[in-house]
This record gives sequence, structure tokens and C-alpha cells, in this order.
Amino acid sequence: METTASPPTTGGPAGRPRRLTIADIAARAQVSPSAVSFALNGRPGISPETRERILAVAKEANWRPNYAAHALSTARSGAIGVVTIREPEQPLWSASFGGHFLAGVQAELAERDVLLILHTVADLEAESALYDRWLGERRVDGVLVINPETDDPRFAALESLDLPAVVVGDVRDRSALGCVWTDDAAATTLAVEHLAGLGHRNVGRMSGDSHLLHYAIRERAYRDALAAHAMRTEQRTLTHDQHGAEEIRDLARRGTDPLTAVIVEDLEVAVQLTANLAQLGMSVPGDISVLAWDDGAAATLLRPSLTALHRDIAGYGRLAAQELVRTIDGGAPRSLQGTTTTLVARQSTGPAPVR
Amino acid sequence: METTASPPTTGGPAGRPRRLTIADIAARAQVSPSAVSFALNGRPGISPETRERILAVAKEANWRPNYAAHALSTARSGAIGVVTIREPEQPLWSASFGGHFLAGVQAELAERDVLLILHTVADLEAESALYDRWLGERRVDGVLVINPETDDPRFAALESLDLPAVVVGDVRDRSALGCVWTDDAAATTLAVEHLAGLGHRNVGRMSGDSHLLHYAIRERAYRDALAAHAMRTEQRTLTHDQHGAEEIRDLARRGTDPLTAVIVEDLEVAVQLTANLAQLGMSVPGDISVLAWDDGAAATLLRPSLTALHRDIAGYGRLAAQELVRTIDGGAPRSLQGTTTTLVARQSTGPAPVR
Repeated sequence: METTASPPTTGGPAGRPRRLTIADIAARAQVSPSAVSFALNGRPGISPETRERILAVAKEANWRPNYAAHALSTARSGAIGVVTIREPEQPLWSASFGGHFLAGVQAELAERDVLLILHTVADLEAESALYDRWLGERRVDGVLVINPETDDPRFAALESLDLPAVVVGDVRDRSALGCVWTDDAAATTLAVEHLAGLGHRNVGRMSGDSHLLHYAIRERAYRDALAAHAMRTEQRTLTHDQHGAEEIRDLARRGTDPLTAVIVEDLEVAVQLTANLAQLGMSVPGDISVLAWDDGAAATLLRPSLTALHRDIAGYGRLAAQELVRTIDGGAPRSLQGTTTTLVARQSTGPAPVR
Repeated sequence: METTASPPTTGGPAGRPRRLTIADIAARAQVSPSAVSFALNGRPGISPETRERILAVAKEANWRPNYAAHALSTARSGAIGVVTIREPEQPLWSASFGGHFLAGVQAELAERDVLLILHTVADLEAESALYDRWLGERRVDGVLVINPETDDPRFAALESLDLPAVVVGDVRDRSALGCVWTDDAAATTLAVEHLAGLGHRNVGRMSGDSHLLHYAIRERAYRDALAAHAMRTEQRTLTHDQHGAEEIRDLARRGTDPLTAVIVEDLEVAVQLTANLAQLGMSVPGDISVLAWDDGAAATLLRPSLTALHRDIAGYGRLAAQELVRTIDGGAPRSLQGTTTTLVARQSTGPAPVR
């Protein structure tokens, strides 16, 4: 660890413009500090001429109200919170979903002059405790609750707190909290039917842990759709596992009832799987079709390009932020479909191989 | 857009625990509100017995100071800001660097009870204006400045403001602001020498736009290292471009002086390039070696696994956050090396092909 001395500029008082106080404006306008306070807060008690002179001085000096004072007088913090559960070393956000979703949230909030506070905690209990604390301190005006689980203690915690909250996920049957959601069951059906239409009868699925609600919803829809088409099911939990491609290859090569297509519910994993299948001598889609969820730049840049389930993720983030702001402003909780999912057919899915 | 009515729970006053006020505590402790204020703020003017009774009531009620009131009395917001420049539809953070860096920043701040405010702006000028505004409003106590540019107006803007700032990047020669940095020149030399040791004499580079300082530093080191080894240089700006793999293939197949290795300064692009080269019938590393920057899960999961330049990115984020907190606490600006870069040799680099 190398250290280099630099001139003490940041944080030092020398020569820097100091933040203007009410007393400074009072001195410049040649009035009392309380007259400045009256003028800046639009209260009666001073003459129109004095008010105008004070406001002109304040404007010229580019004076802005102290945020904390504003927060105290309005009982608003001007910020919302998004909490993620993860180990410190784990990256924030998946490349294909989270980064786009958060970008949409931020874009919407920036237009409304609301700040976004991001926070990491170790587990669901810590998250609920943080909400309680934030409410007590009035640090945030509301929260977006992400990654709802099938058995999620955060719902009850938030229902008992006077902290506006919007859940990102379909919790209509599970919570009185408002939510924005995407119809993952319909999207799953779309994926299975695309593959059924290409003649596939044995479709696998690489997915995440079904304690997360969206994976549980997809799993149920996947089994329903396969049953409707009298198809066989293969499923493995999606982990970043180097043996994934070998397992898929072995399933596709077995003598009876070989796997001919796989739905991969993470774009990054789909890219790696496709590359590794090629390395193992498997042709995509000649030997096996690959269908990815979500869509993204990597899907179009890979050869073969990836057939993908596509959602307007940034728009979904924007809507979630809008909905939370509406709830903070006193709107009743409601549920809103955030975006619809379509299927973009590209090179990685094709007719089932005849064997 | 479907709307479903739900019971008006969130934001509604019915049955919810209201935030406790000083008046509530006064009523429970049977004292005046000003006595409560004295007790909670540790001021004299009440008897030790009264103080103890009030504190016991406050503790039992799980009372917490209003954050804005605390911020006013301490002149601290308890938050730091990180601003990113991008279009609303662009995802936040690269998969291989940003997500890990920000996770480290968050982990460090959470331990210190400092909040992280993330904000998106359209350009450098908007970023400087936001700093000015945040300082005026006292919204943040300091900022981490990311993605420094070779000709960056944010340095002068921040040097003239009394807002603590730490730059993430090597700006020792460019700014009086404090910075944390990684030695990208040394890392580039490491990459070139690894390839030179394998017999490569014509090494290409896929990189980002050199208006970003880290790309400019790497470009210079790359040209120096190639000159030192009497190697030829090929360079193309790294864009997510589907023709990238075809260009690399064509350079590797030309009759005279074929390209035998390429350094790719983005892990996601390196994964796609490697997959696409396989699809084009090129063997990695048989026909061409691929070396990626940064390291990450995708590098180990791909076949061939990717040789990569490795940094402790989360630790770098932690150090940046620590350094900003130290600066906010009045520490003089300094520059600190955040992490050292090593080379992890895997399957994607091998001896230069004999042609």
C-alpha cells in the first residue's frame, strides 16, 4: 500500500467557498436574520420591498435551503430505499436484470428529485429491522422490496409499519402491500409453446432456487405447460457450475428420450452454456436448442444469437419508482403489471433433431 | 396495464404504529416535552432521577432520534454519493467490475452506519452541478468520483467546492483531490509479458474509449510493453459489436504476420469473443490466445476457462469508502493504491501457433 502526500485541498477551509448561511444573506441585504428567514420561508411580517431585496440577494448568492431543515419542516426525507441481501463479496445485481431495473428506478427518481439509497444486509430479518430503524429515524420515505420469497417475513413486518412500500413481484395473493409485477407464468408458457411448435417433446429447465417467488411461479407454469403438451420434464437448479454443460450434453445424448431443448433463466448462464456446449462438440440448435431469460446485448452478440424472453426492464423499474412515489403521496396500495414479456426468436432455437 | 384494488394498508393510518414523538415520551414519563429534549440530548437542566426515568421510557419505546434533526445538529447528512453518467436505458455497472466495486463500498459503509446514495446524470457538467447542489443542501457529506477522464472538468469543480471527494482512479498527476487507484500500467505489462513468454509476437487489444483515464493509461503501457518486446500492435476500440470475432479471425488468418493473441479489457466481451471464435471454427488457444480483464465467475465457468487479470475489486471498493470517510472526518487528501493486479493463467492462453 503506497501513500503519496498531496496538497491538503479537500476538506480544508483555505480559499474554498463556504456554504452561505442565513446570517450571510442578512448581512448582504442589511436586514436581521429573522427577516431573511421570513422571506425565504414565505411568511408574513416583512414589507414586500424588503422581501424582494432579500430574495434577490439569496438568488444572486445561489442560496439553497439546508436539506435537513427542509426534511424537518416537511417530515419527508426526499429519499427512498432499496435493500439487497447478499454477502459483501457478491456482486450487486445480475447483469441482465438488476442493472437495467435499477437504471430505470434511478432515471424516474432523478426526474422527480427523489434520492435513491442502496443498502446491503445479511438476511431477511436484518432487512425488516432496517426498515423499522429507517422509519424511526425518517431516513427514507418509502422502500422498494425486491426478490420476494414464497414465505417472506418482510411482508408482515412492513404491513405492521407505517412505512410506504411497493413489492417488485407478484404478491397479490400474499400481501396487502402494493406491488408491480410481470406475468412470469404467461412468459413461461410462451417459451414452452415456442419449443413445442418446433417439435420439441423433452424440454429441460435451468432455474434458480424456488424459495424466490418468481422462480416458484415459473416452475409451476413450466410443469403445467409441459403437461398440456404431454412433454417430459427435466430440471436442475441453476448454479454457476462448470458441470452444467456436461449434464445437458449427457441428457441430450442418452439413447431413449433425449433432451432436445433447454430454457435457461439467466442470460449470463445461457451464454456460458451455449459456449461450453460448442466446446463439447454439441451444435446449438442442431443438437439442442437454448432459450434464455432475460434478453440483453449478450443475446444478440453471441453466435448463435440467443432466442430470449424479452421484457422492458428499465421501464419496469421506472413504474416501480412511480408507484412508490404515488404510495408515499398517500395513494392506496394496488398491484400493477409492470411490463409484458415477449419471445424474440433468434438462432439458438430450431426444429427438434430427428434421432 | 392491469389494476387490481387491494385493501388500503400501506400509507394508511389505521392500526399502524405511529412514529413516537418527544411529546409521546413526555406524556408517558409525565414530564414536559422540553425535559425530554434535555434528557435525550444530554443537556443539563433536569435532575438525574428525571433524566433516568425519561431515558428508560425512551428506551422501552424504542425511540430513535429523527434523522433530519440529528443532521441539523451535527451538520452531517450521514450519507455519501456516487454519481454515474449514462442514458436511462443503459444498465448500471459492468458485470465484472462495477457490481463488485459497489458491493465493497456498501459493505464498508453499512459497517460504519453511513448511507450510500446512487444517482444518475446525463453528462459531466450535470455531475458537477449536482455536487454543487448537494453541498448547498447538505444532502451528502462527500462523494466518490468514478470513471475519471483524461480531461475531466469534475476535478476543478470539486477543488473549488468544500465537498470532500475521493477519486477512484490514478489522478495523482492531474488533481489535488485524494484518490484510490490500481496500477493499470503494471497490469498491462504483466499481460503482455505473459503472452511474450508464450512466444506471441503479434498481440491485439480490444479496449474502451481512451477518453476514460484507465483506458488511456493501459493504452500507453500496452504500446510501451509491445515496443520493449519488439512486437507488432493491433488495436480496436471495444464496442459490443457482433463483427468483433470476425475481425479477430481475419487478423489471425492473414498470410503475413498473423495475430496470435488478444487482450480483451472486459470480461463479458472476452466470454462472447471466445464463444464466437469457436463458432467461427477458431480454436482458443490453438489458433489464438485470449486474455481477459477483469477476472470473475464467467472466466472459470467458460470452456476454455479464461486467463485473466485479477484484482480484489470488492476490497478496492471498501478502501475507497474508508478513504472517503477519513476525508470527511478531516483527513488530508492522499493517494492510495487500492489493490494489486495479478495474472491468473488458465486454458485460454497457450503457446503461439507455429505457421
